[in-house]
Amino acid sequence: MAELTHFDGDGHAHMVDVSDKAVTSRVAVAEGCVKMQPETFALITEGRAKKGDVLGVARLAGIMGAKKCSELIPLCHPLPITKVALDLTPDASLPGIRIEATVKTTGQTGVEMEALTAVSTAALTIYDMVKAAEKTMEICDIRLVLKDGGKSGLFEAKRG
Amino acid sequence: MAELTHFDGDGHAHMVDVSDKAVTSRVAVAEGCVKMQPETFALITEGRAKKGDVLGVARLAGIMGAKKCSELIPLCHPLPITKVALDLTPDASLPGIRIEATVKTTGQTGVEMEALTAVSTAALTIYDMVKAAEKTMEICDIRLVLKDGGKSGLFEAKRG
Amino acid sequence: MAELTHFDGDGHAHMVDVSDKAVTSRVAVAEGCVKMQPETFALITEGRAKKGDVLGVARLAGIMGAKKCSELIPLCHPLPITKVALDLTPDASLPGIRIEATVKTTGQTGVEMEALTAVSTAALTIYDMVKAAEKTMEICDIRLVLKDGGKSGLFEAKRG
Amino acid sequence: MAELTHFDGDGHAHMVDVSDKAVTSRVAVAEGCVKMQPETFALITEGRAKKGDVLGVARLAGIMGAKKCSELIPLCHPLPITKVALDLTPDASLPGIRIEATVKTTGQTGVEMEALTAVSTAALTIYDMVKAAEKTMEICDIRLVLKDGGKSGLFEAKRG
Amino acid sequence: MAELTHFDGDGHAHMVDVSDKAVTSRVAVAEGCVKMQPETFALITEGRAKKGDVLGVARLAGIMGAKKCSELIPLCHPLPITKVALDLTPDASLPGIRIEATVKTTGQTGVEMEALTAVSTAALTIYDMVKAAEKTMEICDIRLVLKDGGKSGLFEAKRG
Amino acid sequence: MAELTHFDGDGHAHMVDVSDKAVTSRVAVAEGCVKMQPETFALITEGRAKKGDVLGVARLAGIMGAKKCSELIPLCHPLPITKVALDLTPDASLPGIRIEATVKTTGQTGVEMEALTAVSTAALTIYDMVKAAEKTMEICDIRLVLKDGGKSGLFEAKRG
Repeated sequence: MAELTHFDGDGHAHMVDVSDKAVTSRVAVAEGCVKMQPETFALITEGRAKKGDVLGVARLAGIMGAKKCSELIPLCHPLPITKVALDLTPDASLPGIRIEATVKTTGQTGVEMEALTAVSTAALTIYDMVKAAEKTMEICDIRLVLKDGGKSGLFEAKRG
Repeated sequence: MAELTHFDGDGHAHMVDVSDKAVTSRVAVAEGCVKMQPETFALITEGRAKKGDVLGVARLAGIMGAKKCSELIPLCHPLPITKVALDLTPDASLPGIRIEATVKTTGQTGVEMEALTAVSTAALTIYDMVKAAEKTMEICDIRLVLKDGGKSGLFEAKRG
Repeated sequence: MAELTHFDGDGHAHMVDVSDKAVTSRVAVAEGCVKMQPETFALITEGRAKKGDVLGVARLAGIMGAKKCSELIPLCHPLPITKVALDLTPDASLPGIRIEATVKTTGQTGVEMEALTAVSTAALTIYDMVKAAEKTMEICDIRLVLKDGGKSGLFEAKRG
Repeated sequence: MAELTHFDGDGHAHMVDVSDKAVTSRVAVAEGCVKMQPETFALITEGRAKKGDVLGVARLAGIMGAKKCSELIPLCHPLPITKVALDLTPDASLPGIRIEATVKTTGQTGVEMEALTAVSTAALTIYDMVKAAEKTMEICDIRLVLKDGGKSGLFEAKRG
Repeated sequence: MAELTHFDGDGHAHMVDVSDKAVTSRVAVAEGCVKMQPETFALITEGRAKKGDVLGVARLAGIMGAKKCSELIPLCHPLPITKVALDLTPDASLPGIRIEATVKTTGQTGVEMEALTAVSTAALTIYDMVKAAEKTMEICDIRLVLKDGGKSGLFEAKRG
Repeated sequence: MAELTHFDGDGHAHMVDVSDKAVTSRVAVAEGCVKMQPETFALITEGRAKKGDVLGVARLAGIMGAKKCSELIPLCHPLPITKVALDLTPDASLPGIRIEATVKTTGQTGVEMEALTAVSTAALTIYDMVKAAEKTMEICDIRLVLKDGGKSGLFEAKRG
């Protein structure tokens, strides 16, 4: 059975030693969505120009959330992030907002947690900004889509 | 149509003025889950005693995440949280881990974002600790379950 | 001569004891501006709709900066902020952006540092976003405009 | 017209990708000042030895502020800062305090925002420590003085 | 045998519910020391005027450390601190520096952790500033000296 | 007499310039302990399985504390930590808990402050979790045990 690398031989949590890993270019992409009622969806999409840009606020929160990843996740390594970008796309078929985050670094370990944290923070921010209109929104399907760089090579999730 | 309270009349984001709201006891409960392969589920549940307590680490991360909520969510008010508790329950039917967070405060605004942030941070931490074994886990169904205290009164989500 | 309240009788810095001050509604307003070349000014004002909302990003940064005030300013008291709002107004006569921040709390000490920190953080963010186009921008005239609540009563700066 | 690099083609804010930039030695120098009444100026300069070292506190706040830059400025990259120094010089001709900050890194992007944040935080701290004596102080003329290292080469502001 | 209040009936860590505790004035005093070689002690005490004020830097670090307590200690409640003061006294008989921190709040739980964190942070800062001269310094005897306010009443440690 | 490197020629605190130091593998080990009454010791050691894992919580707090070092210690350089591990060992002869922290980085300066901060934060967390049972615990004998990498070479403290 696979080992949980975040624990040592005695079962004690530790921050894994990456001192001997190569400094390489690394990238990770994560996605997720926030599902809501059609009325709430309309509130966000129709209001963007005039009444306030929910997705613009959530995008910034996601970028800043990626930078806070190693503070939030106890055993994450701090990393000098070199890029963060978020796509927030209204999808009437949910209805809701699809979120995708791309993070890059040049470092000794991967940035999948940074990408997942960016998606998660953007999703929570959407919830926060619209919760006065609807409390039943759900944050769903947060997952890693792609990871590359480093020893373990390319990972790509199956789409759809 | 409902208004988005986090924007003023010109569509500019602001932190809503809660100065005139009463200081009352407030509580919020949120839930969510992390879905995984049966092998990964076994790794967490069977390994708890000897190989490392994934859920114990995730529980702490969730508690500390609740305290970071107003730093992460741009328009959230800082609040003196008076209680945070997380339940993390392995559920073989997912298979995966169910997470429930309860947060209380005595303050001028609610703590639903703190509860949702606690669930979200605990879920990300589970992902982080087990990602060496499986990269296809999904964080799902994060939602508000209960909110009480304050002017808007009791909200309870429909179960299942 | 007036005393510097942030030092004790031996000249040692301390966080002033506000334990016995009344919990009252407090408000502070601060202002400042960022001066720039006309071409840079045009870049910000003409680009708002299509090319990116510099002022929207700066506004959010200012709101979040107000929440970080007691972390940045060594002897500031942490306070449960109840409102933050920023106005960012392009002014062709500078040319540049005028920034005004309003902060409220219900607490034992004032929020002028929070308002000044909000202005300052918004100004730095404008600089950051436009610095690829111009490095000679200046952040100017940051000052307290109004303060009310608490024992010292109303303060209003002379306008212009 | 120049482009705003912090926005992508759709006008969405992102943290610029610096993955392919060279790791080089970089330095930035910024300056600014706090203007005040002669009585307040005397309070700071005459009180340094006995009544409390306002400038010593502000210098430390500026150093720590530089380290918080990427938390405060939404699209700033986190960087391993290798040096921060602040000069705080009383200038009777203002009257007030002149602040200059020098920041270095060995990294993939520049440190001008760190230097500007250091000046800004030191200025706010001076305001905080003396505000009981004067509320009309102004923080002025914060600007970049020098930047070197990296592809864009040397920038030097015109002096006075 | 006494119960550990930071765990629930199942042995799971939680942040204790203080929602029903009274908001009262609370104070805590903690102390500790840093022991060093006589030459190091001389470096600190003789150098204060001319060569740099180690104790001034450590005092500020302690004050700011108190404000970070609830971020550092996982199950600590965030509290609106109303006073922090540190005394740092050179003691040739150690030789070393004695540190005492006093913290107050008006809140629902005590501030002993804030006082202990202030002492601890000040001690670490002294170590940091002098470590180029001596690596064998020890941080010792950090303990609670006094606690008052709240249901449990007055606690005073026996003095030496 | 040795110089205090954290002050410049005028006695002003600064963050030392490490720009020209080599990027090398660095390691530091620090230790300390928390002394307590035998009854308190029993509460921790006997309760681990059923009543709550004090040492597990303290271990995580220590790991996260190491990551906060450069925020807490004013003149510390931020560093990309590559490993943190803590050993917490009950020692009936104290009685109390012995703490040892190991930190690694690949950087331009050492990690002894990170190791000492990890020990200190773990010790404070033990105090916090057990303080309802005993307020007279003491945090003792925090010191550097080993440091290697960088120009100054190997340092090893004398044991016992």
